Amino acid sequence: MDTAAHTMDVARLAKEAARSVARLTTAAKNAWLLRSAEEVRAATDKIKEANSCDVEAAKAKTFSSALIDRLILTDKRIGEIVTSLQEIAALADPVGEISHLVTRPSGISVGRMRVPIGVIGVVYEARPNVTVDATALCLKAGNAIVLRGGSEAFQTNRALAESLRRACSETGVPPEAIGFIETTDREAVRILLTLDKYIDLVVPRGGKPLIKLVAGTATMPVLKHYEGNCHVYVDEFADLDKALRICLNAKVQRPGVCNAAETFLVHAAVANAFLPGLGKALIEKGVEVRGCPDTRRLIPQAKMATAQDWDEEYLDLIIAIRVVPTFEEALDHIARHSSQHTEAIVTENHTRAMRFLREVDSSSVMVNASTRFSDGGQYGLGAEIGISTDKLHARGPVGLEGLTTQKFIVFGDGHVRE
Amino acid sequence: MDTAAHTMDVARLAKEAARSVARLTTAAKNAWLLRSAEEVRAATDKIKEANSCDVEAAKAKTFSSALIDRLILTDKRIGEIVTSLQEIAALADPVGEISHLVTRPSGISVGRMRVPIGVIGVVYEARPNVTVDATALCLKAGNAIVLRGGSEAFQTNRALAESLRRACSETGVPPEAIGFIETTDREAVRILLTLDKYIDLVVPRGGKPLIKLVAGTATMPVLKHYEGNCHVYVDEFADLDKALRICLNAKVQRPGVCNAAETFLVHAAVANAFLPGLGKALIEKGVEVRGCPDTRRLIPQAKMATAQDWDEEYLDLIIAIRVVPTFEEALDHIARHSSQHTEAIVTENHTRAMRFLREVDSSSVMVNASTRFSDGGQYGLGAEIGISTDKLHARGPVGLEGLTTQKFIVFGDGHVRE
Repeated sequence: MDTAAHTMDVARLAKEAARSVARLTTAAKNAWLLRSAEEVRAATDKIKEANSCDVEAAKAKTFSSALIDRLILTDKRIGEIVTSLQEIAALADPVGEISHLVTRPSGISVGRMRVPIGVIGVVYEARPNVTVDATALCLKAGNAIVLRGGSEAFQTNRALAESLRRACSETGVPPEAIGFIETTDREAVRILLTLDKYIDLVVPRGGKPLIKLVAGTATMPVLKHYEGNCHVYVDEFADLDKALRICLNAKVQRPGVCNAAETFLVHAAVANAFLPGLGKALIEKGVEVRGCPDTRRLIPQAKMATAQDWDEEYLDLIIAIRVVPTFEEALDHIARHSSQHTEAIVTENHTRAMRFLREVDSSSVMVNASTRFSDGGQYGLGAEIGISTDKLHARGPVGLEGLTTQKFIVFGDGHVRE
Repeated sequence: MDTAAHTMDVARLAKEAARSVARLTTAAKNAWLLRSAEEVRAATDKIKEANSCDVEAAKAKTFSSALIDRLILTDKRIGEIVTSLQEIAALADPVGEISHLVTRPSGISVGRMRVPIGVIGVVYEARPNVTVDATALCLKAGNAIVLRGGSEAFQTNRALAESLRRACSETGVPPEAIGFIETTDREAVRILLTLDKYIDLVVPRGGKPLIKLVAGTATMPVLKHYEGNCHVYVDEFADLDKALRICLNAKVQRPGVCNAAETFLVHAAVANAFLPGLGKALIEKGVEVRGCPDTRRLIPQAKMATAQDWDEEYLDLIIAIRVVPTFEEALDHIARHSSQHTEAIVTENHTRAMRFLREVDSSSVMVNASTRFSDGGQYGLGAEIGISTDKLHARGPVGLEGLTTQKFIVFGDGHVRE
């Protein structure tokens, strides 16, 4: 197979199909989603067979057990994929919404209409469920998609994509709208990322090296986040019971995810009252504490934090803690070290809360709540294609609305400009 | 002067100042705008003196008269600059707006807050008023700015930027928030466009070669439009009086601007009734008509249109006209040839109007109105930093709101994730 020609064909056909997808009614898109759920369920054995081939090959190549765990599809996981298709069918369709419609002095009416973006490229690693979740979200938002998953999940992804395409024929969705690169040749990724004439937006899903590769190569816009170095700041006016609950939850409830906290900042005025109890609770939960000198005075088991700790995304049971002399110093620390993903303040003081909300430049900013809430499901977006720490277009968890854009619409009655 | 070091300093200082600008109250920003208006008015003689140097130098270099016309600042033009500062002071401040606030089943409240983008780079050509308009819009939206105007307007731009900075000291705005590159060395542009760690968004203002240079070089997002190949489609169900009025206005009211029409598509069912009259009216206004064979049959003075005419942005008294057999063919023609700026349909048929609105993928889509309305002032945005034909972030005329972004905000009361 000629990788370049094939990749270009897939993208070009997706672009041609995008106009039909944009025109689909909500009923047609939901029919396709529910039919896809049936097709995936009916193909469970075939999908598991394809998955076994991938898993065997990955084991033979002695890939890490974490990668193999992400790769394996069990009946339960396939059941979750089916459920997610049904859930996306139940979400409201953002396409066609008209807002901000006002009549102007000239007599024209001007508003905005929400419309699909066009073709979304999704480049991902070993999790096969992304094949289905991303396709479902993109098509529900009226877009075509071009999928490029990790080579280690190739057989599984192909079997899943076939199920999604089988659902097309009976529901009027053009199968070319689900573009699937039929080769594991890595060259396909590089070519895909330069096809800005066909692909309007690319979403990388995976580890930092993948994100860097995509952001550095893509000639179209990229929706991404690199990492989540999230902070909880415990203010001098904090309710320390709430602070303890939030800090523990933000660090230990699921430490391996991007919205887990990596640094606590504690105002000096409450350090004596707060840190010994926090230290005890963290250590009981098996957390390694790395602290500034003030922290180590109050949590004797803490190791000395190095300059590098303030920039670290541990994704593990490790926390960096710093005592800050002022609220301003907490804001400065966050401005210097945050990855602009999610930060929280714990305070009972209204002015501090509102200044923190306004001045911290992150995709999610919280008052008296755990950073772990930073998630499309928790925010009511239904499902997310990813989290964006970019500042433009979509910021934070990105659901169906983030996969659309708005255009201006004008209604006149023969109006001309004077 | 070391161009690289200077450019980096200007951008770095703007980034540092951006946090202060984001915190400014609306009153403080308006005070700065009104004070700037006074400073520019008071410095009129000095600004005109600087402008004379630029104009003399441009004449000596035998620049085109169009360029010299754009460069010259008269008392009237300086008066317009002063007025525009006052008008921007009168606009509503988008920063801090909280929307979509809902309480979720977990008990947290989730909403979105409108916040500044950070630092906006503006790269422009010979119009000195951009120095003031762009700075006023960016600062009102809570952003810092880095200005890089054309070397032919350097003295004028510097005098204007000095006036804006003089207004800073008494109003608490950090003068570093108005970054001005103090050299005409072209190398500064190339360096500026790679400083994505300091500059969040760049807006090129000028001709297509400048836009291409910026889009091809910039490592940060670019807000731009290349050209306006705008279409008016006259449907078989059009009111032909409205159609004539709209076609003439869209072509001749101001042919040199991007929202002027460049192609008319006319449904075959009304071609006989419509085209002879349209042709006569256009030719009376001095418009050169280039048509398809059907058009030439009905407008004998029309030249034969070549394939290239359908992609041309004339910006002149020239129009391409094509008779299309069906509504679908009009949609296809627009999908193939439009620059996705502005398209209009003239029809009395509701279903056609709504399909055109939904399916034409342009930044502005209109029913029974002239494309000339595609403009921030006409849309009620107050003033615009430019028009975007990009699909992400801001599309169409971009005013204050397009110079901001939204982040998620979460209010809890000690809430943690289960």
